[in-house]
Amino acid sequence: MEPLTAVPMKHALNTTRQQNFAQWYQEVISEADLAEESGVRGCMVIRPWGYGMWERIQKLMDAEIKKAGVENCYFPLFIPLSFFEKEADHVDGFAKEMAVVTHHRLVKGPKGGLVPDPESKLEEPLVVRPTSETVIGAAMSRWVQSWRDLPLLVNQWANVVRWEMRTRMFLRTSEFLWQEGHTAHVDREDAMVETMRALEMYRAFAEGPLAMPVVAGEKPENERFPGAVATYSIEAMMQDGKALQAGTSHYLGTGFAEAAGIRYQDKEGGIQHAHTTSWGVSTRLIGGVIMTHGDDDGLRCPPQIAPHQIVIVPMLRDDEGDAAVIDYGRTLAKELGALSAFGEQVRVLFDTKAVKAQTKRWNWVKKGAPIIVEIGPRDVADGKTAVIRRDRLYQENGKLATAFTPRSDFVAQAAGLLEEIQAALHAEAKARLDGAIARDVTDLAKHFKGSEDKVVGWAEVQWARPSGAVLDGIVARLKELKLTMRNTPLDAAPADGVCFFTGEKAVERILIGRTY
Amino acid sequence: MEPLTAVPMKHALNTTRQQNFAQWYQEVISEADLAEESGVRGCMVIRPWGYGMWERIQKLMDAEIKKAGVENCYFPLFIPLSFFEKEADHVDGFAKEMAVVTHHRLVKGPKGGLVPDPESKLEEPLVVRPTSETVIGAAMSRWVQSWRDLPLLVNQWANVVRWEMRTRMFLRTSEFLWQEGHTAHVDREDAMVETMRALEMYRAFAEGPLAMPVVAGEKPENERFPGAVATYSIEAMMQDGKALQAGTSHYLGTGFAEAAGIRYQDKEGGIQHAHTTSWGVSTRLIGGVIMTHGDDDGLRCPPQIAPHQIVIVPMLRDDEGDAAVIDYGRTLAKELGALSAFGEQVRVLFDTKAVKAQTKRWNWVKKGAPIIVEIGPRDVADGKTAVIRRDRLYQENGKLATAFTPRSDFVAQAAGLLEEIQAALHAEAKARLDGAIARDVTDLAKHFKGSEDKVVGWAEVQWARPSGAVLDGIVARLKELKLTMRNTPLDAAPADGVCFFTGEKAVERILIGRTY
Repeated sequence: MEPLTAVPMKHALNTTRQQNFAQWYQEVISEADLAEESGVRGCMVIRPWGYGMWERIQKLMDAEIKKAGVENCYFPLFIPLSFFEKEADHVDGFAKEMAVVTHHRLVKGPKGGLVPDPESKLEEPLVVRPTSETVIGAAMSRWVQSWRDLPLLVNQWANVVRWEMRTRMFLRTSEFLWQEGHTAHVDREDAMVETMRALEMYRAFAEGPLAMPVVAGEKPENERFPGAVATYSIEAMMQDGKALQAGTSHYLGTGFAEAAGIRYQDKEGGIQHAHTTSWGVSTRLIGGVIMTHGDDDGLRCPPQIAPHQIVIVPMLRDDEGDAAVIDYGRTLAKELGALSAFGEQVRVLFDTKAVKAQTKRWNWVKKGAPIIVEIGPRDVADGKTAVIRRDRLYQENGKLATAFTPRSDFVAQAAGLLEEIQAALHAEAKARLDGAIARDVTDLAKHFKGSEDKVVGWAEVQWARPSGAVLDGIVARLKELKLTMRNTPLDAAPADGVCFFTGEKAVERILIGRTY
Repeated sequence: MEPLTAVPMKHALNTTRQQNFAQWYQEVISEADLAEESGVRGCMVIRPWGYGMWERIQKLMDAEIKKAGVENCYFPLFIPLSFFEKEADHVDGFAKEMAVVTHHRLVKGPKGGLVPDPESKLEEPLVVRPTSETVIGAAMSRWVQSWRDLPLLVNQWANVVRWEMRTRMFLRTSEFLWQEGHTAHVDREDAMVETMRALEMYRAFAEGPLAMPVVAGEKPENERFPGAVATYSIEAMMQDGKALQAGTSHYLGTGFAEAAGIRYQDKEGGIQHAHTTSWGVSTRLIGGVIMTHGDDDGLRCPPQIAPHQIVIVPMLRDDEGDAAVIDYGRTLAKELGALSAFGEQVRVLFDTKAVKAQTKRWNWVKKGAPIIVEIGPRDVADGKTAVIRRDRLYQENGKLATAFTPRSDFVAQAAGLLEEIQAALHAEAKARLDGAIARDVTDLAKHFKGSEDKVVGWAEVQWARPSGAVLDGIVARLKELKLTMRNTPLDAAPADGVCFFTGEKAVERILIGRTY
């Protein structure tokens, strides 16, 4: 977060990050037309600009998933209760807050409205999937017979529902969109290779298309997915210093395979249980992008996931000069649309809506279109363009840093500029993340004191990886400070000291911070 | 359906279309690995080959939707009961068989299993969306203020649930996948233009990528979408002569706008209700493709929607010659993958799975891969390929019509061959449709007699477009013959006679047939 300047600048949003980060977040979502409350408890409407970002995420991630040999399928929304009862740890972890379908018909009620028809009560209630291990496990048990059928690699893009008491758009909603990969393997080794492949896919995706630096590592035991043997995550740091778990990959051992009966005949003719994994990312990524790249003028959308990368805004005057401006804009859009950036065609919008140019400019600033190009009659005459880079909106004097560029120069530079913006957003966030991990903390309370107002980030400490009551005690102590353990970074230095919590010999390093 | 030959040929499926069309359909789905029962009532698992077809449909249709200026969004899965109660006709039509969520938590039951927690009972039950007019209408009422906000054009790709008592995979399942377009307009005229645009988009899509000829027309009053002023459909003819409604487009008048409060200020400052439309196609299209193009060897997948258009099967012998075959196949796959057909890169699979080549060949025949190429050591030596066109599988003598083609010739022809197969599938189905619409029927009972065993197709008759009790009477009479009115074709000849049913002056022509 930038320091308060002596003379406060005027920004497009009413609330700055500094003033109230949570309120700023809601304001970005609303002002950038990303999403809104739906009137249905805990569910949001994802609007075109927000959904367009999700479509970009889907397209790029899906290509990575397919490249890994994983095939897309679709499994039922409803899961019979009995499926859930099979895996004991999974039940304990998930059986709490789920939407339950109990009837299949409505009839006119005594007061005239509609009520569930008592005669349509289901013999076995159906759960709206919170995640699909159980129902996909049942399918895998039909598909897997022999070692030749393994590995079995499937994925689905779907909506899931987890009843949430306190919701926040994109970060925690009752219904959300995600992809869930589910794989079955001959042994632990092969399953672990897949678990780590998915984790690395997520890490590279976050750092690449999302320009969002993350730390990949293993979650501590108390943060494991219900029923998992090991859970790995990527953790991103938001501009308020809090952690956002942005993707997870689980090695599930043979627990789900035993519950669902995923068995195979090995090469020697013996019967074995498969080892399974699952991994997912969701629309939560969009919340991460907002809180990583947003500024006091709204979203700054990384070019790779921006639905429109370049928006051309014509300055029209409702006179006979307009036709030339429209012509100029149309030709410019065509030239830019023929360019290639990030190995894809550049996505250009020529915004001819019947709205004032000034209003449009600020709407696109708030939405975070990476490049905004304004063209007016004078630009047509001079063969120029007025180019605004969303990642560097202002000059030092507080005025817009518009670059008046000859049109041919701009066309020649545009693709490179998009790639430069993508890199600049990543570099800025990466510097912030790297600068906000403290490795010399001796007193957590002191270190994190006042971190509600000031960016403190995370602490990396050494620990002995305790379990049981010792671990519970650590979790409780951290909870008092509103802290949690995030993960044990894969690329952390080896332990060379004693456990921060127990004083025993440390075995690894773990990140601690506030979290979403 | 082909006539029984004197000497019955052996085919890849156990059941022929002639023997039992319904059982043949299930067998294609199972043998082509398209989908399977999920163990969840009325819900299916869509397997990779079936889901791959859906992904192709989504990709191509989504491009058409975007081209029309429609923007994708996402709306909640759950719709509060009160939303449903607003539009009276819509309630009557839809309120019957829907999945109702009544609880949001599970707890351990007295017998040890899980039960819905009585304390988590929702104050207002939530309906799992059967379609989204109501919840999207609520959003539109927030988004539309002025005539400048219109037209408002949105679409979503989503799952919907309609509780079905008798389900059939792809054709009628409790949960299915679809797209639903929803638009709001200033007046009837503009809304009707959109209604017809969507209908034409569906017609062109069915005849193009799906190679499935259809008749576009208006549904009779009794078949209208609940709450619609007019419903239009595309109707395809399956190989058993039955109709499949494959897509619908509705002009909803101002009814939904009045219920949801979609009002706008017109240019004169007056307040008006918007005129809305909705339109959708679903995974049912896949059922239509199966029953349009399938034969007694399985599916014949139109190249434009085939997940893999060309499959290369190597004949391996587990000896040192295999390496050369693999090399040859890999190079061939690369050459073919660099080609372009239908304006897209050709999709090629080099199938190196550890399965016998003969088994693979027949699996790909059953799945309907448009072109199957077999390569063995001799082909490597001779620089040849053994090419099987799935749409023309056999020679007249009943042997496979494999074409032994020099590899360079095949690569040169492959893209054209795919386009030829697409056209041939369409032409075959088009001839069947055109040949099975009778325009001289005087006695429906006689005409359709025995149509369960023999392909009769449809009858086109003139009618006076009656409504009320007269229409009800006609519907009831047709029902006795297991017949329904499909639609009044847009391109039918003008009426020039009397109503088939009432003897009054006819105003248009309407199709009658059995239906799915």
